[in-house]
Amino acid sequence: MISEEKILAKLRKAFPGQGMRLGIGDDTAILAPHRGFETLLTCDWFLEGTHFLRDRHPADAVGWKSLARAVSDIAAMGGRPKCFLLGMALPETMSSNWLDEFLRGLRKASKELDCPLAGGDTTRNSKVLLQITVVGEAREGLAVRRSGAKPGDFIYVSGRLGGAAQGLRQLLKKKTNREIGESLRRHLYPMPRIALGKWLAERRIASSMMDLSDGLSSDLPRLCKESGAGASIRESGIPIQEKASLQDALHGGEDYELLFTASPQNARKIPAAFQGIPISCIGEITKEKMVALKDSKGRLRRLVNQGWDPFRNNK
Amino acid sequence: MISEEKILAKLRKAFPGQGMRLGIGDDTAILAPHRGFETLLTCDWFLEGTHFLRDRHPADAVGWKSLARAVSDIAAMGGRPKCFLLGMALPETMSSNWLDEFLRGLRKASKELDCPLAGGDTTRNSKVLLQITVVGEAREGLAVRRSGAKPGDFIYVSGRLGGAAQGLRQLLKKKTNREIGESLRRHLYPMPRIALGKWLAERRIASSMMDLSDGLSSDLPRLCKESGAGASIRESGIPIQEKASLQDALHGGEDYELLFTASPQNARKIPAAFQGIPISCIGEITKEKMVALKDSKGRLRRLVNQGWDPFRNNK
Repeated sequence: MISEEKILAKLRKAFPGQGMRLGIGDDTAILAPHRGFETLLTCDWFLEGTHFLRDRHPADAVGWKSLARAVSDIAAMGGRPKCFLLGMALPETMSSNWLDEFLRGLRKASKELDCPLAGGDTTRNSKVLLQITVVGEAREGLAVRRSGAKPGDFIYVSGRLGGAAQGLRQLLKKKTNREIGESLRRHLYPMPRIALGKWLAERRIASSMMDLSDGLSSDLPRLCKESGAGASIRESGIPIQEKASLQDALHGGEDYELLFTASPQNARKIPAAFQGIPISCIGEITKEKMVALKDSKGRLRRLVNQGWDPFRNNK
Repeated sequence: MISEEKILAKLRKAFPGQGMRLGIGDDTAILAPHRGFETLLTCDWFLEGTHFLRDRHPADAVGWKSLARAVSDIAAMGGRPKCFLLGMALPETMSSNWLDEFLRGLRKASKELDCPLAGGDTTRNSKVLLQITVVGEAREGLAVRRSGAKPGDFIYVSGRLGGAAQGLRQLLKKKTNREIGESLRRHLYPMPRIALGKWLAERRIASSMMDLSDGLSSDLPRLCKESGAGASIRESGIPIQEKASLQDALHGGEDYELLFTASPQNARKIPAAFQGIPISCIGEITKEKMVALKDSKGRLRRLVNQGWDPFRNNK
């Protein structure tokens, strides 16, 4: 049984000197704002049994992913992360080793994503509960909303889709291949597209943007709904991760790539790849409020939402 | 079974037009900072089974208290709340009525504490999980830490202590008295001391401050530890809520009163009551790093930490 003192000592060791102006130990963290910036705020659940399985997902991947997926929401606004709060509930029976590995992955994400720990709250629960709040910032007036897409805008996605879904299947099959393939890596250690999001926002290229967390067939309709528009996308335009299927790319969640739109005038400024990440045009925003998919034979059908939904998928 | 759409619709109805610049529906909330202010950040768990019992605590009290206790952390820094994020996980079997009542209490707290909803995340879980993040602000450089107490400073508490502990006992006894007494009200609907905290901070009266969430015998040693000092308090000086005991006042948590210190020079500026809330001097900060309690006969004994601790009390 691991005591609260021990947990806090481990946290302090994993994040030395952090806590912004103060942090762990005081009632709140204190954050000095930058002139000319707005604050972005997001929070994300990451629950054992719903979002990860303790006996399947490596503890360091749980740590990495819990922060990376929340930072992805900041990237999707065109912002950069400033710090995070960690809400953590642990079972009494939790092994010290699991916690060490979890903190190793979390610290790695914190360092690589430049997002220090600012504070948090710990308690007990029979299952591991994680709630991550990320504070970010974007230049005043430049944060990109979901609601800005206009009919005629082109629709883009970064990277390749379906890898995380394919990786999850691999993980659930318990294949003990020591080598982690690209798809499994995509599922375990997703990489939020901070630099691309910031570039698209600060150059005012993207008219709307969000991240692909639940799958294209769930997320694109959300962007369309907020923009009061529809979309027509082409099967042939969708960039599919090697070994993944079209179904994975359409309905698999957790790729954490960016989905964004740009006007035809801005489209010419969009490169085929940004820092090695391919950018693909997959269709256009339409006036008609329906999300349609054109197959390889040119036939149009409605894109049915089959993405991830805890209210449907979690039993 | 209540769908996610229904939950979000209820949230939108309970908090119309809120979400700061945007809010629910986008990836993150956007917050414009005020010149000359610093941002305060705190997050708090509120879990069924650990922090409340669904069959004993009225749902509206769960809503009120989940926000009020997090706002209390902002008050304890001398800040005022700006907005909150709601992380909420609900069981599939959750009744629509419970959710309505919960949201009624939460909305009431949000209005009375002037702390609008800025965003959040909802998911499924077998028990109700709540995680509240509150963003606050304090004038630059004026937020009051736990670490500023100096030997010779006087120690104060606001209000009367022990009421919440006494109220919890009443609740657990299942007494079906329709009339809610003051102690039960203190347990169910605590009131964070925002105005007092702000007044003490902005006049630079408090040298250190925190809120009494886990009980005086838990919280005072924390303040002393952060300040590198000790304390000597008098039993006779402790303001006890009517019908509560000295034990309730020393070790009962959840009163959410302020615990603060002030130098002898500043002590004269402290009134006996602030906006109807009594303020009591209970002792002094000492050089010797021990927290001592002087009983009515003048005998000194070490104050043993018997406050609330989820790592000890929660089975």
